[in-house]
Amino acid sequence: MHEIAIFGAGRIGSVHAANIAAHSMCNLAGIVDPDFEAADRLAGAYGTEVRSADSVFGDVDIEAVFIVSATDTHADLIEVAARAGKQIFCEKPVDLSVARVKDCLAVVDTAGVQIMVGFNRRFDPDFSELRKRIHVGEIGTLELLSIISKDPVPPSLKIAEASGGLFRDMTIHDFDMVRFLLGEEPIAVSVTASCQVDSAIGALSDVDTAVVSLRSASGKLAVIVNSRRATYGYDQRIEAHGSNGMLSVGNRAESSLVRADADGITGSKPLYFFLERYALAYRAELDCFLEGLESGKMQAPNGVDGLAALVLAEAAVESLAAGREVKLD
Amino acid sequence: MHEIAIFGAGRIGSVHAANIAAHSMCNLAGIVDPDFEAADRLAGAYGTEVRSADSVFGDVDIEAVFIVSATDTHADLIEVAARAGKQIFCEKPVDLSVARVKDCLAVVDTAGVQIMVGFNRRFDPDFSELRKRIHVGEIGTLELLSIISKDPVPPSLKIAEASGGLFRDMTIHDFDMVRFLLGEEPIAVSVTASCQVDSAIGALSDVDTAVVSLRSASGKLAVIVNSRRATYGYDQRIEAHGSNGMLSVGNRAESSLVRADADGITGSKPLYFFLERYALAYRAELDCFLEGLESGKMQAPNGVDGLAALVLAEAAVESLAAGREVKLD
Amino acid sequence: MHEIAIFGAGRIGSVHAANIAAHSMCNLAGIVDPDFEAADRLAGAYGTEVRSADSVFGDVDIEAVFIVSATDTHADLIEVAARAGKQIFCEKPVDLSVARVKDCLAVVDTAGVQIMVGFNRRFDPDFSELRKRIHVGEIGTLELLSIISKDPVPPSLKIAEASGGLFRDMTIHDFDMVRFLLGEEPIAVSVTASCQVDSAIGALSDVDTAVVSLRSASGKLAVIVNSRRATYGYDQRIEAHGSNGMLSVGNRAESSLVRADADGITGSKPLYFFLERYALAYRAELDCFLEGLESGKMQAPNGVDGLAALVLAEAAVESLAAGREVKLD
Amino acid sequence: MHEIAIFGAGRIGSVHAANIAAHSMCNLAGIVDPDFEAADRLAGAYGTEVRSADSVFGDVDIEAVFIVSATDTHADLIEVAARAGKQIFCEKPVDLSVARVKDCLAVVDTAGVQIMVGFNRRFDPDFSELRKRIHVGEIGTLELLSIISKDPVPPSLKIAEASGGLFRDMTIHDFDMVRFLLGEEPIAVSVTASCQVDSAIGALSDVDTAVVSLRSASGKLAVIVNSRRATYGYDQRIEAHGSNGMLSVGNRAESSLVRADADGITGSKPLYFFLERYALAYRAELDCFLEGLESGKMQAPNGVDGLAALVLAEAAVESLAAGREVKLD
Repeated sequence: MHEIAIFGAGRIGSVHAANIAAHSMCNLAGIVDPDFEAADRLAGAYGTEVRSADSVFGDVDIEAVFIVSATDTHADLIEVAARAGKQIFCEKPVDLSVARVKDCLAVVDTAGVQIMVGFNRRFDPDFSELRKRIHVGEIGTLELLSIISKDPVPPSLKIAEASGGLFRDMTIHDFDMVRFLLGEEPIAVSVTASCQVDSAIGALSDVDTAVVSLRSASGKLAVIVNSRRATYGYDQRIEAHGSNGMLSVGNRAESSLVRADADGITGSKPLYFFLERYALAYRAELDCFLEGLESGKMQAPNGVDGLAALVLAEAAVESLAAGREVKLD
Repeated sequence: MHEIAIFGAGRIGSVHAANIAAHSMCNLAGIVDPDFEAADRLAGAYGTEVRSADSVFGDVDIEAVFIVSATDTHADLIEVAARAGKQIFCEKPVDLSVARVKDCLAVVDTAGVQIMVGFNRRFDPDFSELRKRIHVGEIGTLELLSIISKDPVPPSLKIAEASGGLFRDMTIHDFDMVRFLLGEEPIAVSVTASCQVDSAIGALSDVDTAVVSLRSASGKLAVIVNSRRATYGYDQRIEAHGSNGMLSVGNRAESSLVRADADGITGSKPLYFFLERYALAYRAELDCFLEGLESGKMQAPNGVDGLAALVLAEAAVESLAAGREVKLD
Repeated sequence: MHEIAIFGAGRIGSVHAANIAAHSMCNLAGIVDPDFEAADRLAGAYGTEVRSADSVFGDVDIEAVFIVSATDTHADLIEVAARAGKQIFCEKPVDLSVARVKDCLAVVDTAGVQIMVGFNRRFDPDFSELRKRIHVGEIGTLELLSIISKDPVPPSLKIAEASGGLFRDMTIHDFDMVRFLLGEEPIAVSVTASCQVDSAIGALSDVDTAVVSLRSASGKLAVIVNSRRATYGYDQRIEAHGSNGMLSVGNRAESSLVRADADGITGSKPLYFFLERYALAYRAELDCFLEGLESGKMQAPNGVDGLAALVLAEAAVESLAAGREVKLD
Repeated sequence: MHEIAIFGAGRIGSVHAANIAAHSMCNLAGIVDPDFEAADRLAGAYGTEVRSADSVFGDVDIEAVFIVSATDTHADLIEVAARAGKQIFCEKPVDLSVARVKDCLAVVDTAGVQIMVGFNRRFDPDFSELRKRIHVGEIGTLELLSIISKDPVPPSLKIAEASGGLFRDMTIHDFDMVRFLLGEEPIAVSVTASCQVDSAIGALSDVDTAVVSLRSASGKLAVIVNSRRATYGYDQRIEAHGSNGMLSVGNRAESSLVRADADGITGSKPLYFFLERYALAYRAELDCFLEGLESGKMQAPNGVDGLAALVLAEAAVESLAAGREVKLD
């Protein structure tokens, strides 16, 4: 049994707590959160206890930590955890600064521990099947990837302010999907974007609607279409176009009921948001982490993947500001 | 914690064992099966032990039993269990004989215990949602129910022989769905059927392809279309047609991937068979059983429902033999 | 150029007039209708003239007549036309009485002319493609045919009274489709039906909702599901289930626009009724008739097909009344 | 009756000839083409005659000309036609040079005749319905337009050489759709593109796979995804995302047949190419032109629209070369 403690008792912390508690290969060894009440509620729900950070890091029985707290705490916690010899799962992003992420990963490296970054979409059954089928050549040579990725509702102002902006907060998942599926690293990023959904986002010099184009060395293209609001729910679709055909993954509906009446033929909306759409993915993500613990070799997405997606996000920010394509080294 | 023992370590026994073991409100208290090896394997997988029937019935800590063994053992086990004061879950059918089922339910009644019959499809999220939406009047007055229900492959000869025939074995689920959804009891059954899939089935004087029509007192109609083989997988669809529109539930696909190429636009097949399609339903069925234990009031489908579906199956057998509509009392 | 006159200036007469007028191989030689105003309107629209029946039958330049007038005039007109040596297209049904149809076809035979009966659905591109693909063995051996056939609105009382009832008026098209697709003649018919849509229909001792099952000598099954009302439009779907798979034809939507919003994912309704859904079929039907004129060999559906479908309709009437399966000779 | 002559007896000339010949409001007054054989074939098919350009321009009975010849002949023919007082329909593009188009439109203006440019997609029933529904506010404020536009096969080398490149030849249609649907003029264009389909295209310094992003003054975004090859047929889809929902138009399938078998659930491909997909659009386009003749006021798309789309294409060429967003005045 792998003993795992969680830092962060919020919405996503609850998801991980439930999965860890239910998994036959691991044990939920405690919850850490400055908000004691939240930590206590979550600990109570899964029969574990509230712990202090020090108590977790000092406990030799705890093998791994899930860092799913506020973004600005990730890097510090990773470094302390690494020095304490803990294996690490960290929600994206590792940090909002590329430099800080590099430092942080160096510490992890030195400590000889492993880190997995929570790019949950890689573990969605449809997307991982998509990758498999692209890679076995089902559509010949992949030429063009289209990712539609829209949230149902914009973030609160507070969350938007701390988010690092659309590209570091939301598009970062799509950047990771491009890297996951394209089979080559992007070498150039180009952005067209605006603020149309919520003027408060614009007041932060941020955007809420964007088209991001990417290009690989061999000329493969990818396009990401983002909006911070889709009244019909979480819109998460991918099309992979190749020399021999196209593979696409659509949204997953809340139910398969369809009503036909005088107003038309109406099916249900997509699952509401990431907690619903990626419920299976979060479970498979934990499986992957546990396999990494067992084998001593963490499969992607690791720290390097976390860094690479952030580098693309920074390039997007720069492209928007400069009105030109930004090349990556 | 409700202590529950399982009679039957076969395929469906494994499903129930997994759900009981994982549920926070009950405990898996043992597996009973004449095939010791199978029982041992299953017990081992979920950290419980192989028990004898006597030991289960004599154990006052065991509150309930799941009877999911061979059909011809159901009635006897139900009676013994009832007399031992156990709450009972029984897979369909209770028995292949209407008379035997009536006797059996009388014993249950006398013993003052409750029985739930495993009509799993009622617990499918889409079908239960369908019922709710019919009943709130979303399509006005329900007039016509169409149930398409086909298995991916015919049963083995051995299973077919013991099954009681298509109507008692397979259509019985659809009869229950008619009762579940129609809002009125069927008063007449009419069958057109033949043996086209497997001549071995015909040699048993059984059929493998059937159209069954039903009628309620007020004139509501239902039609069930059955085949013992669908090369594209388990075909489980329902359409409810009413005065203000139609509600339909389609199959659930193995994945949402779609390939477009020179051969056309190809999506994945429906989930393969009942274990896959009704995985969620089996879990919700257990929830319902546990609620019945908690409240002391077992919600349908109970013994009466098990009997009613069997009566419809007998009427179907009679209709096929006589070439006419059979009326129910 | 084949000169063709039309008897009947109603809705369906207008469809045929438009197609004949636009076709490069024929010429619209006149309209006959006791309602002079209607005839005049139609003649004017397509640059032809109102004619009397005698003038048409006596005109040696007129090679063929389209009999698309009221049902109770069909048989008489066919006989006169046949005796006048005209080639005949007649809307279904030839007559509501099997005996009368037989007499009528004998006259046609004696006269040595040809007759085509307007089973328009055979000429729907999807249904004719369906037949082709069944017949080349794409789904192995055909075992089971499901036809869903619902009108958007019930007929007016006047039309219902003259219609001969649901089976002779509406189901007759579906009976023809069964014969068209099944590859074997039905030998037994079984009906479950009721009046749920309009009590005025029930007052005529007619039904408006029905399930009709058919069986061929080798055991192939077909089921027809009828309703006189579908609030979402004309519902015309067919599923053909075979030993190697299933082929299905769905409804054709008014447009391909789909709206996604907080209420769900809504596509447009099926095309409203037969004029819209079978517009292409009526054109292809004319092509077939003209080919029959050219080749001297009328392809099905001919008079025998018209008779066979009516025989099935009579069997359905009898099955409903007797509450049993009716066998055909 | 409007007398119309056609310049150009190629594939698209045949489409227009058929529509003009069949239309009740106009007459096909002759075919002009340096390839006499092609002209003769087409004239013969529709009962008209081969004419010289001079004879057409000098014929006072001819009111309008359809210029559907090779692109490099358009501008000259437009000018001569305008000076001869003919009303003009011209296939896109008017010319490959913005300067030449401006000169040409000045001549048209001076001559006081009208010109319509053949942006056929505006007349597709689904796309014109889409526009209507966007404009009545069905999805609130339009924020983001996604156009997927892929040809089934790349052009021949000869055609590619004369085409003016992907943006002037193929994307120009999509630029027009952006202008047609967005409700605001684009003010900036940004391109990411490569040659992946056919290296012969790359040898012409052209691209065959592209992502084009556009932005309007108020921040509305549009993205066009192009490929010169889609093995599954002509891919023509549009999504319009607004503050209250999304409207989308999908491909139209060759048939509505669906096969379910052990390989999955397979529907037919989209209609093969523009002649098939836009058959209805070409007819509606002619209606619009004739209404322009009748009313004396040509509705869009006119010469200004032809110019505006070409300006966007030039901006795309520049953006690709410069690696930056190009702003329009």
